[in-house]
Amino acid sequence: MPVFLNAAAPDFEASFAALLSAKREDAVDVDDTVAAIIADVRARGDVSVIELTAKFDKLELTPETLAFSSKEIAAEIAKVPNDERAALELAAERIRAYHTRQRPEDARWTDATGAELGWRWGPVAAAGLYVPGGLASYPSSVLMNAIPAQVAGVERLVICAPTPGGVVNPLVLLAAQIAGVDTVYRIGGAQAVAAMAYGTDTIAPVDKITGPGNAFVAAAKRRVFGRVGIDMIAGPSEILVIADADNDPDWIALDLLSQAEHDESAQSILITTDAEFGRAVAAAVEKRLETLERRAIAGPSWRDYGAVIVVQDLAQAAALSDRIAPEHLELCVADPDALLTQIKHAGAVFLSHWTPEAIGDYIGGPNHVLPTARSARFSSGLSVLDFMKRTTLAKMTPEALRAVGPAAERLAISESLEAHGLSVRARLDRLNR
Amino acid sequence: MPVFLNAAAPDFEASFAALLSAKREDAVDVDDTVAAIIADVRARGDVSVIELTAKFDKLELTPETLAFSSKEIAAEIAKVPNDERAALELAAERIRAYHTRQRPEDARWTDATGAELGWRWGPVAAAGLYVPGGLASYPSSVLMNAIPAQVAGVERLVICAPTPGGVVNPLVLLAAQIAGVDTVYRIGGAQAVAAMAYGTDTIAPVDKITGPGNAFVAAAKRRVFGRVGIDMIAGPSEILVIADADNDPDWIALDLLSQAEHDESAQSILITTDAEFGRAVAAAVEKRLETLERRAIAGPSWRDYGAVIVVQDLAQAAALSDRIAPEHLELCVADPDALLTQIKHAGAVFLSHWTPEAIGDYIGGPNHVLPTARSARFSSGLSVLDFMKRTTLAKMTPEALRAVGPAAERLAISESLEAHGLSVRARLDRLNR
Repeated sequence: MPVFLNAAAPDFEASFAALLSAKREDAVDVDDTVAAIIADVRARGDVSVIELTAKFDKLELTPETLAFSSKEIAAEIAKVPNDERAALELAAERIRAYHTRQRPEDARWTDATGAELGWRWGPVAAAGLYVPGGLASYPSSVLMNAIPAQVAGVERLVICAPTPGGVVNPLVLLAAQIAGVDTVYRIGGAQAVAAMAYGTDTIAPVDKITGPGNAFVAAAKRRVFGRVGIDMIAGPSEILVIADADNDPDWIALDLLSQAEHDESAQSILITTDAEFGRAVAAAVEKRLETLERRAIAGPSWRDYGAVIVVQDLAQAAALSDRIAPEHLELCVADPDALLTQIKHAGAVFLSHWTPEAIGDYIGGPNHVLPTARSARFSSGLSVLDFMKRTTLAKMTPEALRAVGPAAERLAISESLEAHGLSVRARLDRLNR
Repeated sequence: MPVFLNAAAPDFEASFAALLSAKREDAVDVDDTVAAIIADVRARGDVSVIELTAKFDKLELTPETLAFSSKEIAAEIAKVPNDERAALELAAERIRAYHTRQRPEDARWTDATGAELGWRWGPVAAAGLYVPGGLASYPSSVLMNAIPAQVAGVERLVICAPTPGGVVNPLVLLAAQIAGVDTVYRIGGAQAVAAMAYGTDTIAPVDKITGPGNAFVAAAKRRVFGRVGIDMIAGPSEILVIADADNDPDWIALDLLSQAEHDESAQSILITTDAEFGRAVAAAVEKRLETLERRAIAGPSWRDYGAVIVVQDLAQAAALSDRIAPEHLELCVADPDALLTQIKHAGAVFLSHWTPEAIGDYIGGPNHVLPTARSARFSSGLSVLDFMKRTTLAKMTPEALRAVGPAAERLAISESLEAHGLSVRARLDRLNR
């Protein structure tokens, strides 16, 4: 059974703190293994990648077959039924429309001294997306990673997707095609991350690597950070539903289960103003768990990390929500917009019970790559900005330099950086001649 | 002597590649030490921080004296001469004006299905700035880190600044006051980073840690990344000047030296269309090195990592510049704006020879915390956005769900995520009843 907490109980603070700090993942320490793999790929390039793929994925490749050929891609994509293709295309269209609005604007202005200031945004030149193999090979994640890159204007977009035993998900290749991916390499693990970061004879290096992966992939991304940009290291998925009594318990139960079914370490929490409704939702979860396909995953997740919290009012719900800083937050209350104004920290908010979180996973438009493990306190979901960078601009005139140069010189001297000061002074002296 | 390269020479490509890949820093592996320090601070809190400060900084503290008192701050600040104070205030005003323009906008719209979509930005609740001690204790860096946080709306802003032997730079405390910093702790190293990330009885944890530091600080930031947000791990400073012959060689020499004087590992590169001008700049550098206060730092930097590259034309200069992706780029040419359109990757650009890079370090307005070591390919200087995060919003209506729900359900089924599909289907069934 999941935890039942009542915010009015005397021991609530201790119980809630325990819930917040519950360790849901045993981080396997694979750092030494990963360091060795990265060093080997840097030293031996394609040969290393091919050997490691044979070892870990039981797949024999050559430099020529590292990437899928366009013929192979076409043959796989042909297997996709029409309704799946249409669904993927609708999702891509909506994700693209949303992300297109995220394109940042350049700025340039002249200040009172006559100095021109501003900034300019530009895309990274090349990005690599990691797509896990097997069960977690999600075409929706291909769209969510590749479309922001495409909208940003990234020139070269590649995917690394392991295909253990050579098996690939045709929908992943279709999603890659829809999202404008140039090349799909059938490699995975730390070796794929290393190849994208440092390049091999066959695989050109990229500037930014995004996408989910197992402990090896996460450790490799952490290690190549700095050489290339990376997205957040994602933890297990989470949902928080704030619901009043005016909801169908079964709908809320399904929303909670839609995170629980991802991973035994996923966490689903209901905060409600009505204890009876909370019990009804918990009962509905148990009923659905009897038949759910992934009950072997969702059941342990719900029992080990699930929680129902009864609060006095929605203000209390909002305060607790901010301490959780949930990845996904559903506001299933009469006036979700009013409640939203009280919420500070959340990755994605779903307003009203007509917006199940699953809409956001696939087709709402916003990105489904979101901050987990309370990191919504300081980070955001994936966006077009993750594939762009900003160059700041400054252009002084003689007049502007006359106005602000002496202060710069003074500060340089105070920091004992003489050449800094002299570089300004030399120009000021010319002006004063 | 620095390297002299001519882009027309047959061996240029090999020489330029060698210059690009020159390892300028021997990364000391301090990771095990740092891991132990972080674990100790997590376990023993204030006691650990106080012991480590006694050990590394020769400074005996108590929980009560971890932070400067307002009386101590006032006494230190009173030592600052008026002209220094005025210079710092002008810098703060200009940095604030620039960064205020970076505040991002919220968005919300209704699409053709009737779904409301959008996003909302908000500040992180608390940020911690690391300020190195000793020679690298720069008040300008306090402004450059704290003002963007202040403009973002961060509620609680703290500084950790080691004060070996108890010595503090009064200008650092003044800069902190000007930039609205709430508390300054006199601690440093990995123990300060750990205290800010995890909190102690005395030091409340923060959500984001920024600021430069030595190898221990950098390793600690890397380790706490995920628990809190961090800025980039900065490497040694770099400048690239692209100059035509119509420049004073001494000005350009001083600009090159203003990076070289930071650090023996700093890199200063001149690209010019005129070989004779290149030689004149190199001669001017040598002349300035005879008397420069920091010649013991700037000399080795220039001789070991400096370079003068002669190119055929400015298009070639732009192409080489993009391969370097410099932290600082000066365009000292007749039409710097025209050249700017050919540049893709740079942290900060300074247009015209009236804009020495030092202006950007202190008083231009743009941030001086910039991507080093070619990371301008994928990352940006510090900005207001680094202290904010975005929450995405989605609000479906029954009509909108009817329009897009079936596609979401189809994709959920294709990914074998049954509960996702059912959470949509349950609502669609209600609508179809």
